[in-house]
Amino acid sequence: MRDFLPKDAEKMRYVEVIARDLARLYGYEEVITPVVEHYDLLAAKSGEEIRERMYTFKDMGGRRVALRPEFTSSIARLVATKIRNEPKPMKLFCAGSLYRYDEPQYGRFREFWQANYELIGSSKPEADAEVLTLTYDLIERLGFRNYWFKIGHVGILRGILVQEGVAEEQQNTIMQLLDKKRWNEALTVAQESGASRSCVAALKKLLEIRGKEVSRVVREAKQVVRDYESAVVAVENLREILELTKESGVKFETLIEAGFARGLEYYTGMIFESYVPKIEIALAGGGRYDKLIEIFGGEPTPALGVAQGIDRLVLAMKKQRVSSKVPEENKVMIIPVGEKMRTNAFKLSLKLRKAKIPAEVEVMGRTVSKALSDADRRGVTHAVIVGPEELREGRVVLRDMKKREQKAVEIENLSKEILRGTD
Amino acid sequence: MRDFLPKDAEKMRYVEVIARDLARLYGYEEVITPVVEHYDLLAAKSGEEIRERMYTFKDMGGRRVALRPEFTSSIARLVATKIRNEPKPMKLFCAGSLYRYDEPQYGRFREFWQANYELIGSSKPEADAEVLTLTYDLIERLGFRNYWFKIGHVGILRGILVQEGVAEEQQNTIMQLLDKKRWNEALTVAQESGASRSCVAALKKLLEIRGKEVSRVVREAKQVVRDYESAVVAVENLREILELTKESGVKFETLIEAGFARGLEYYTGMIFESYVPKIEIALAGGGRYDKLIEIFGGEPTPALGVAQGIDRLVLAMKKQRVSSKVPEENKVMIIPVGEKMRTNAFKLSLKLRKAKIPAEVEVMGRTVSKALSDADRRGVTHAVIVGPEELREGRVVLRDMKKREQKAVEIENLSKEILRGTD
Repeated sequence: MRDFLPKDAEKMRYVEVIARDLARLYGYEEVITPVVEHYDLLAAKSGEEIRERMYTFKDMGGRRVALRPEFTSSIARLVATKIRNEPKPMKLFCAGSLYRYDEPQYGRFREFWQANYELIGSSKPEADAEVLTLTYDLIERLGFRNYWFKIGHVGILRGILVQEGVAEEQQNTIMQLLDKKRWNEALTVAQESGASRSCVAALKKLLEIRGKEVSRVVREAKQVVRDYESAVVAVENLREILELTKESGVKFETLIEAGFARGLEYYTGMIFESYVPKIEIALAGGGRYDKLIEIFGGEPTPALGVAQGIDRLVLAMKKQRVSSKVPEENKVMIIPVGEKMRTNAFKLSLKLRKAKIPAEVEVMGRTVSKALSDADRRGVTHAVIVGPEELREGRVVLRDMKKREQKAVEIENLSKEILRGTD
Repeated sequence: MRDFLPKDAEKMRYVEVIARDLARLYGYEEVITPVVEHYDLLAAKSGEEIRERMYTFKDMGGRRVALRPEFTSSIARLVATKIRNEPKPMKLFCAGSLYRYDEPQYGRFREFWQANYELIGSSKPEADAEVLTLTYDLIERLGFRNYWFKIGHVGILRGILVQEGVAEEQQNTIMQLLDKKRWNEALTVAQESGASRSCVAALKKLLEIRGKEVSRVVREAKQVVRDYESAVVAVENLREILELTKESGVKFETLIEAGFARGLEYYTGMIFESYVPKIEIALAGGGRYDKLIEIFGGEPTPALGVAQGIDRLVLAMKKQRVSSKVPEENKVMIIPVGEKMRTNAFKLSLKLRKAKIPAEVEVMGRTVSKALSDADRRGVTHAVIVGPEELREGRVVLRDMKKREQKAVEIENLSKEILRGTD
């Protein structure tokens, strides 16, 4: 697990703040759920791979608990219990740390952060379009100009397998293998689980159908799945979502994959991930999970969501040299000339901070010249030297650290003088 | 562990944002450290009580780890290792969740949140004064008007016990008992650990010395500890810190307690806690720990810090009816008249959000009247109805939900019209 030193921590908070602001603009209300949850809840529909990589332990009360590996289960639990009677749609945002015991590799860490958006209560394609739009909007606001979405629909594959009588457990195994791009193994499992020869042939063809052009991919996929009614409905649903999104003026490149699967077992509809060049891991991932809230004891409730990887976005920003737009600001160091001036230095610091100017007081008991050379090293923009003589006249010495100029300034005008330089 | 629903989550973020802004104004840079740390690190100097209440387990690599019960150990680890060569003073801020297996009771939860400030590298009393000032400043900025600080100095009791030859382990036990207000047991342990009769008598007297008036408490304490050189120095140090703070114009009520102890073992100097009426738990707690960084393998480095309880501050705000100053804002619901208008509704929503106006699109496929009555229930301020006829003229219907008035508005002027109401 990692430490984030100031420069990286600042970027993490920058992405989190923009993600939270986006939630506000889209009407998503924030909730905070615990890092530690019951193992059974987190394990229910997360999928084999995640189940195996959870940090699991018994708490002092003997309960089997785990550190959350993702947010959706916790949100579904909330919706099924504490807020089950709220009017729909419900739009919920959360942001925080998550845990998976992965082997450390590029961009994948055992503690990671996500900004998570869930849209609960609508089965309409406009809900799917909104979640895609929101994902696009965050990437745009962060300043990326080069990204694409990989999009599919779990209902295509599941629709075929259900009609062929493949049991849910085997379906899950097949989806997991597809997620890992172990296509041949997936096809073998399908065959061994009762899928007909023509079905396996159809699946094989499906896995090859991919492309940027919605109409072509949809036409080809429909051709292949024509004998599987609910798979046809799924292809149609995907087409409508994508058309709605594009016609709404949201422009992002899409790679549609008819055989796309994601690791989580709870997906039932459209699924997607976002990518940028040179980084092989997804920056965001999401999809529709219409059955999960029911499984947790709630009313049958259609829902979908997206998790945006905060630390992955930071990584991508660094890699692509997308800068965080944090404005440069003044940084003032107040240096008392001798111990007797300390309280006056403190008084001034309170005054500057009230004027929203970041101000530090020299607390090492150093001489003015030592304190000044340290201030220089730290990127302080202004030093304020509080000496007894100037103070008697209601003044202090203000030093512009960049210009290396200094002058006596009335204390009354100090904030104004400091802010003037930045106008 | 708790869930925070939107109203409470908003208050949590409100306090966190103000705490982070304060860090910026005081020159504290943020770092992010992991929730899971090595058990040995967290256990080293945290004290018996916290050690027993940590969430401890073995990870999949067989390492004994724990969920952090406090921030200071992690920060001291950072300072001793990754940033050991940075110039001093170092000022570090962090905010996040912490874990203790406490029996649930008022204001005490197994998952809780703190904003943490550490000032590293200065042994001067002005460093102590700054941390007190910063703690006061957060409480003031949140709008509390009625609060006080309980203040003491670990060096007084430890100074006496060291001179009497009481071993460190017994010292720790005594401090833990004092923290629990089990005074008689503490005195018994002191006696059994080799403290002389006159020492026990002095300790007993010390425990009774408390009050708001610095000069009186200092005079009385000095009288009692006059035979213990380093205890006298500690009393003097406390006096200087308090005088510096008060003379700097920072006005808060203090209750000085000569026999004040806190649960954490790493304190070496001034310690304090802040309180408000009607809530018996401390809102913030902190103190000086000059030996901790050395213990973790760093250079000998004086340091002190404060942890402000984010969820406790929220609790206190609710209890004392201190309101968070979140400005009321517009909330727009865009309702398409029929499916064909959906993409236009989406386009408008993107436009409004670019103008920083929170805007939701109706995604339930409901009729205008149903969508309007739902919007009413949710506190939407403006509804925008997108119908084909108005749209042909480049217009939409804007409905003021409070005034229950509506009119056709040019799309070009929509943001302006919405914002006009709030000016």
